Order: sequence, then C-alpha cells, then structure tokens
Amino acid sequence: MSEPVGSPLLRVGVLGARGRMGSQVCRAVDGAEDLDLVAMVDEGEWLFNISDAGAQVVVDFTNPDVVMDNVRWCIDQGISAVVGTSGFDAARIETVREWLKPTEGIGVVIAPNFAIGAVLMMQFAATAAQYFPSMEIIELHHPNKVDAPSGTAVHTASAIAQARRKAALGPMPDATKSSLDGARGARVDEVPVHSVRMAGLVAHQEVLCGTEGETLTIRHDSYDRASFMPGVLLAVRQILGRPGLTIGLDSLLER
Amino acid sequence: MSEPVGSPLLRVGVLGARGRMGSQVCRAVDGAEDLDLVAMVDEGEWLFNISDAGAQVVVDFTNPDVVMDNVRWCIDQGISAVVGTSGFDAARIETVREWLKPTEGIGVVIAPNFAIGAVLMMQFAATAAQYFPSMEIIELHHPNKVDAPSGTAVHTASAIAQARRKAALGPMPDATKSSLDGARGARVDEVPVHSVRMAGLVAHQEVLCGTEGETLTIRHDSYDRASFMPGVLLAVRQILGRPGLTIGLDSLLER
Amino acid sequence: MSEPVGSPLLRVGVLGARGRMGSQVCRAVDGAEDLDLVAMVDEGEWLFNISDAGAQVVVDFTNPDVVMDNVRWCIDQGISAVVGTSGFDAARIETVREWLKPTEGIGVVIAPNFAIGAVLMMQFAATAAQYFPSMEIIELHHPNKVDAPSGTAVHTASAIAQARRKAALGPMPDATKSSLDGARGARVDEVPVHSVRMAGLVAHQEVLCGTEGETLTIRHDSYDRASFMPGVLLAVRQILGRPGLTIGLDSLLER
Amino acid sequence: MSEPVGSPLLRVGVLGARGRMGSQVCRAVDGAEDLDLVAMVDEGEWLFNISDAGAQVVVDFTNPDVVMDNVRWCIDQGISAVVGTSGFDAARIETVREWLKPTEGIGVVIAPNFAIGAVLMMQFAATAAQYFPSMEIIELHHPNKVDAPSGTAVHTASAIAQARRKAALGPMPDATKSSLDGARGARVDEVPVHSVRMAGLVAHQEVLCGTEGETLTIRHDSYDRASFMPGVLLAVRQILGRPGLTIGLDSLLER
Repeated sequence: MSEPVGSPLLRVGVLGARGRMGSQVCRAVDGAEDLDLVAMVDEGEWLFNISDAGAQVVVDFTNPDVVMDNVRWCIDQGISAVVGTSGFDAARIETVREWLKPTEGIGVVIAPNFAIGAVLMMQFAATAAQYFPSMEIIELHHPNKVDAPSGTAVHTASAIAQARRKAALGPMPDATKSSLDGARGARVDEVPVHSVRMAGLVAHQEVLCGTEGETLTIRHDSYDRASFMPGVLLAVRQILGRPGLTIGLDSLLER
Repeated sequence: MSEPVGSPLLRVGVLGARGRMGSQVCRAVDGAEDLDLVAMVDEGEWLFNISDAGAQVVVDFTNPDVVMDNVRWCIDQGISAVVGTSGFDAARIETVREWLKPTEGIGVVIAPNFAIGAVLMMQFAATAAQYFPSMEIIELHHPNKVDAPSGTAVHTASAIAQARRKAALGPMPDATKSSLDGARGARVDEVPVHSVRMAGLVAHQEVLCGTEGETLTIRHDSYDRASFMPGVLLAVRQILGRPGLTIGLDSLLER
Repeated sequence: MSEPVGSPLLRVGVLGARGRMGSQVCRAVDGAEDLDLVAMVDEGEWLFNISDAGAQVVVDFTNPDVVMDNVRWCIDQGISAVVGTSGFDAARIETVREWLKPTEGIGVVIAPNFAIGAVLMMQFAATAAQYFPSMEIIELHHPNKVDAPSGTAVHTASAIAQARRKAALGPMPDATKSSLDGARGARVDEVPVHSVRMAGLVAHQEVLCGTEGETLTIRHDSYDRASFMPGVLLAVRQILGRPGLTIGLDSLLER
Repeated sequence: MSEPVGSPLLRVGVLGARGRMGSQVCRAVDGAEDLDLVAMVDEGEWLFNISDAGAQVVVDFTNPDVVMDNVRWCIDQGISAVVGTSGFDAARIETVREWLKPTEGIGVVIAPNFAIGAVLMMQFAATAAQYFPSMEIIELHHPNKVDAPSGTAVHTASAIAQARRKAALGPMPDATKSSLDGARGARVDEVPVHSVRMAGLVAHQEVLCGTEGETLTIRHDSYDRASFMPGVLLAVRQILGRPGLTIGLDSLLER
C-alpha cells in the first residue's frame, strides 16, 4: 500500500475486507510483490473508496445478499471482479453474463473453490474417469458441517459422470447382493460418494479410481483458509487478460 | 516331511489340503523349520491318514458342511485343531465347547481372519475407541464381493462400540442436517461404516479415529492369501499350550 | 474459575499461562466441567499465586531454563505437576526422581508429546513390531522444522527396535544392491526413517509394517495445537492417583 | 482366434508369448472382443509365424538381447509393434527412429510402464508441479527389488523438475539445519525421493504436492501384472493411427 505513484503494480481492492476470508485476502495481496492493496471496504462503508483509490481489480468475499449489487457496481465502474462469495445459481450466473455483454475488457471470475489443489483434483478425476471403470469419492470433514456430501464432492461426481458418458462406459462393476442401508454410500450421478464427519478433521477429499490390477488415488487436504489465497491471487493476476465471465478456477490453470 | 524319527518338530496334518487355502497352508507348514507336514487330506480321502501319521495338530480349511465332523473326529483322536473354515455361529461354537469339556490338553482355535494385521487392526481400534469421540470405518474390496459391509468391518464396529460403551462415551459429534441417502454410510452398532467396491482392489480396511486437533488412522491391506499363513502358523505353534476353545487369533498375540 | 467454595472440582494452576501452549491449556481447563482453573502465572509473576489459590495440580509449559526451578517449587509446596516443557534429558529426569523420593502422594508427569494419537501410534507400532519383519517410518512436517527426523519419529524407531530385539527378529528383508544416497532413508536403531518437509503440512507420521501378503499402516495427523489438550487433561485428572515420577503419557492410557 | 475370415478384428501377434508378461498379453488380447490373437511366438520359434498369420500389430515382451532384431524384423515386414521390453536407452531409441524414417504407416510404441494409472500419475504430477512449491516422491516396493529409487520414481522426478524449471520456480522451502544422513531422501533433479522396501508390498508410488494450507497427493498402487494389460491394449488399438515412433504411453492418453 506504500508503493510510489507510477508503479506498475496491479491495484487491488477488497470487499468484505474484515471478514474471515476477506481479511486473509488483504494480507495475501499486501504480501504479494506485484500487487498493491489500495482499498479495503466492509459492510456499511463506501464502495466509492474502491474506485477513488483507482482499483483495477476487486476481490469480493461478502455474502449472497449483497454480492450481486457489488458485481453490478464493479462492472459499471469498469473494474474487474474476482468473486468467492457463495450462492451463485444458474440464474445469477446468467444475469452477470448479460451485464458483461456490452462491456469491453472487463472480467468477472466466479469460483466455488479457490484451493488450487481442489481444482486440480477435480480435473484429474475427470481425466482418470475415462480409463478407470470404478470411481468412488470419499470426502471427510469436521463434524460441524451441516450437509453431506460436500459441494466439492458433488461437483467432482458430476465431472466424473460427464467424462464417463463421453467415454461411453457401462455401469461400474459391483456384485453386491446383500447390503446394509447406506454401506455403499450415496449415488451422485451414479458415482458412489461416502461422507465422513470427524472431530479433528478440516476439509479433505479422496477420489479412488480402479481398474484391473491397479488403483489411482487423488487426495486433497485443506488444512487452513490460507489454501484459498494462491487461487485468489492467480485469478487476480489473470483477470485483466480474461474479459467476460469465467466460472471456476479451472480454465485459469494452464496445463 | 523327511525329518528323522525322534525329531522334536511339531507334526501337522492339513484337511482340505488341495483347496485354495489348504494348499497354501501345506506349503507354509512344509517351509517352516520347526514344523513337520505329516499328512495332507482332501475330500474323499481317509481322515485316518492324519492319525496314522501321528499328527499332533490339524489345520482345517474345508467347508461348512463337513467341518463339524472334522472337528469332532480330531477331538476324539486327541488331536488339536486350528480351524479357518467359515460358518461358525454361536450354536456351533457352543457345541465345540461342549465336546472339549471332558478332554484334557486338546485345543481348538477357530478364527474368522488369520491375517495378523487384521487382528491387530481390530485390537488397536478397540483401544483407540476409548479416547477418540469420532470413529468411522472404511472398508474397500474387489467388486466381486457380494456382501457389504465386510465381516471384518462388522466385527471391528462391534469391538469399537463395546469399547465406547465401557468408556461411557456419548454419541459421536455430527451436525449433519441435510444428507443424501447413504452419504453417511451404514450404522453398525452406531459406528458409521462405508463400503467401497472397486476393480483392482483386494481386501483393505481403514479405521479412522478423530478428536480435537488430531486424527489416528489404522489401515490394513491384504494383497494375497499368503497373508493368512503367519497367523495360521502362529496358531499351530501355540495350540498345544492352549487347551480348550479359543475364538479368534486375538488372545494368541501377546502384547 | 467461578465455582463455589466447597466444590469437588480439581483445582488447577497453569505456569507459562500466556504462552502459545499455556494459553490453550488455560482455555481447556476452564472449559472442563470437572476442573477449576484457579491460577494463571507467567514470567515475572509470583509462583505463590499458585499455592495461595489452593492449586492441587500445576501444568507447566514454560521453558527449559526455568522448568527445573518450577518443578522443585511444586514439590516443596506439595503440588503435583504435569510438565510439557522440553529439555528433559536423563540427568534432569534423575534429579526429579530424587526430589520425589522423600515425598508422599505427590506426582510429576513429564511427557514429550501430549497428543493421545501420537502416544497410541507409538504403542501400536511397538506391538506390531513383534509380528512384522519390515517396519519403516515416514514423518511429514511443515518446511520450517529445523531437524530431521522429528523427535517423535526417533522415539518411535527406538520403541520398534526394542520390540524387535525382544522378539529376537533378524534383519529386515531388503535386497537393495544399487541405491542413490539417501533413497532408503536414515537408520535410527536399524529402522529406516524418511522425513518429508512440505508447505501446507502441520505434523504427521506414518508407521508402515509389512509381512507376507499384507501391510498394516498406523498414521497420526496433528492439525492443531489443540490436539495436545486431551492428553494434558488426562494427565491432570490422573496425577493425584499416580504418586512419584511418570515419564510419557503411555502408562496413563489404560488398554 | 476363431473369428471368421473377413472379420474387421485387429490381428495381433505376440512375441515372448510364454513369458510372464507375454502370456498375460495373450490372454488379454484373446479376451478382447475387437482383437484377434493370430500368432503366439516364443524363443526358438519362427518369427514368420507372425507374418504368415497376417498380424497387423505385434506386442513384444521378450528381452533386451533380442528385442532390437524383433523390432527391425517387424518394420521390414510392415507390421507395427508395441514394445514393453526394457533396455531402451537413447542410442537404441535413435536407431529405431532411423529405421522408421523411410516407412509409411508403420508405428512403433516403446513404453517403460504400461499401467495407465502410473502414466496418469506422472502426467498429473507434472501438471501439479507448476503450482506447488513443495514436491516429494515416496515409492514403496517389495523387498526383492534391487535398485532404489525405482525407474518410475526417477521418471516422475524428472517430469516434475522439468515443469518446475518451465514455471521458473525457486528452490523448495526447507529449513532443515540438522539432519541424520538420508533422512531427507535422495535428490533426483532436486526432487526428494524416498524408497520404502517392505514385505507384503507390490509396487506403489505417492507424489506429494504442498503449498500454503493445502496438500495434493497422487498415489498409484499396482497389485498385479494384470495392471499393464489395459495400457497394452490401448497401444495396440491406437498404433495403426500413429505412424512413426511413440515413446511412453503418455501421448496415447487423450485428456
């Protein structure tokens, strides 16, 4: 925040700056040599602090009630936005897409999970699904989580199912005849998903892939909210070169 | 099998000697320096080959239809028996116990799982269950398995539940409010059990134990029928010192 | 801290109460229904606040320079002590043992690791070592750790080696003829130990045990300093029934 | 092998047909509905049985002494070849490339590892290496293996190192100051590699990737030689569309 005028640093503002995620984003941006944290705004404060400070990119970790207004405001001001706030269903996504149509050079990235490892896990799972007849997901979380399976597990299962359909694979091999209720997990798009809830855990997921004589396991462990920061910074750095709407971190990761 | 008369080797006969398990037992006994494989008997052959050869211990991997006759015959002949054949319910066990009452010095060991690692996993799980409020089981098997969960998983869950009752633990922490059917697994004695069926796998089980800030995981991988042999040999070596009925390998493992 | 006079709660004082560990201990004691946090003392403050408050047990997470004086003072005051401070070599342990000799009913517990999962991992590893010819340790820590292998890994290796000697096992099977330097890990008491240092990790250890056709893996994951609290509370609750010196949490865990 | 003349099945011959790998290849080709096993040739038998039977593709699992003659003969006969025999150094690869130059439509695939899971593991590791500052490899094998680290681990480390150079990453974070010899593993192209040798294991590898607050683990387990068959069949099916030389299964897997 103390860079001289004329610096080539990318100027970043943060919305929701005092929240759990937002405050970490502020620290991460502040600590990045190529970024300049020019404005931190939270509930009840002026959005115009962002534009007055000349922000080129905004990071939004606020809440579903206000995020649409924030995105609209950013677009009107010609500021690109990286959005981690939840609650984006198909209708909201379509609305943002419409807002972006008449603009030029403005980008909006909306992502459900900014952990690079989680994004890669989903990519790798979809790739492996073409070759492995058996695919199952085990997701493991702290016991305060209210839903099962996790959103990331559901997304992963859908990506696997889509890859299996594309590869025209038949049903997974499974000779189970007698089973206790629930033993074989939930089915999400035909993919078995098992949810573990356990004291001590944070957020973890394993994708198991099996074929004759071998298995491949892809496991992601999230130990800390800090794990989202590299993904947020990646999006911030790439958004100016990505006008229009980008859903998920996936396409920002070059392979 | 070519030891001189008067050798101090323990003389062992095998019933079901040409079966998948029995043939491996023959090889294992034959390869052990302290054991003498004196008789191999299979379906349609003379049981008396066993006694004629002076066997002190019999290993039985036959089938549930004939195993009770075999055990009875061994006891009548004064030969101890290590039994891996399945199908021993409470009634059969009680019958064998009755048969043994009037005898002296004859031992019978009946075990559902001779893999030492599986036995230790169950012991360790029961020990850990006193200290960890969250306990879940994931068992993973080849896709030709017809039942879910596995017998070993059910036994493990029961051992965990018993330890939890003894330690007077309350219910496991779990805030799940909305859940897809089956996501949280089957409940065996209140312990969640998840069953994975997957091409490539053999027989595997993980016991996960969680408390504040830490988890402990005990995993057993069975790659090969050979994994039962050390447990069979252990039982053979100890049975003469263990008159009466022994259920499970557990008590033969000194800690 | 607000329990009425006459309460049967166990009265606990904390030394090093404002340190990273000490402050967590204070919260943990304060949150336990059967314990009463009666005094919190840190550097530069009166030790006598502890005795004035009628503490029956002291928890000490201070530093190696002052811990011996603290323990001496507790013993003189007739207060039992649970000590997590590091730096206890054989000489210091002997000294404390001498100090305790003339006393009656006073207990001192000194433990290098209060995570119950870590203690069980070491116990289980020593038990398994009797049956598995191959035993190796992989420990994984954050990249700021300055020593390799970790202290817990060294302790585990020693416990394994002792169990192997007791069971009169020969050398581990290993046909390696050509090897890059370091590929097979460090040898601690003949046990191979591998140290991973990796961004994102906290403190983890796996003990791998192998025999014919099967493996058993015992893994401990420490995600948070909070993992030490259950072990500290366990020691606090048991110390009045354990006069004399107790080294390690091990003997406090009933099996 | 009993398909009617005129069938559109791909005609496959096997060299080294009675070897451990070759005999499995014969079974796998025979069991595939779209392939026709037309010739099985082993040491001391006529290569011309292959061409007489009209084979379009040969699979070679022989030995380093004869494989070059076999490949040369296949090219001369206009038959494509899938080669799993080891011993292909840079000079041999160059020779095969020269042989193929004047040909048209003939393909040769030479691969060190036909397990699809192993190939994907290497691909995924190289992809992840761009984003994770910490990367380490643990490979685990049966105790009869004579070299450490494994060939697959060395290949993986090289792929990781190449990706790191391309992404211009600095050295991995590691504050280790005091270390027992070997604790931090072998360095292959700056990547730490740890080799476990253990009774019971077959062939396994884990690639660990760490960044702030999260880790990603990619694990491959090979339980059986059967795991190579899907990769062999994949190469057989694609080779006619891939004239020239292909090294590794990698490029045959579409992503």
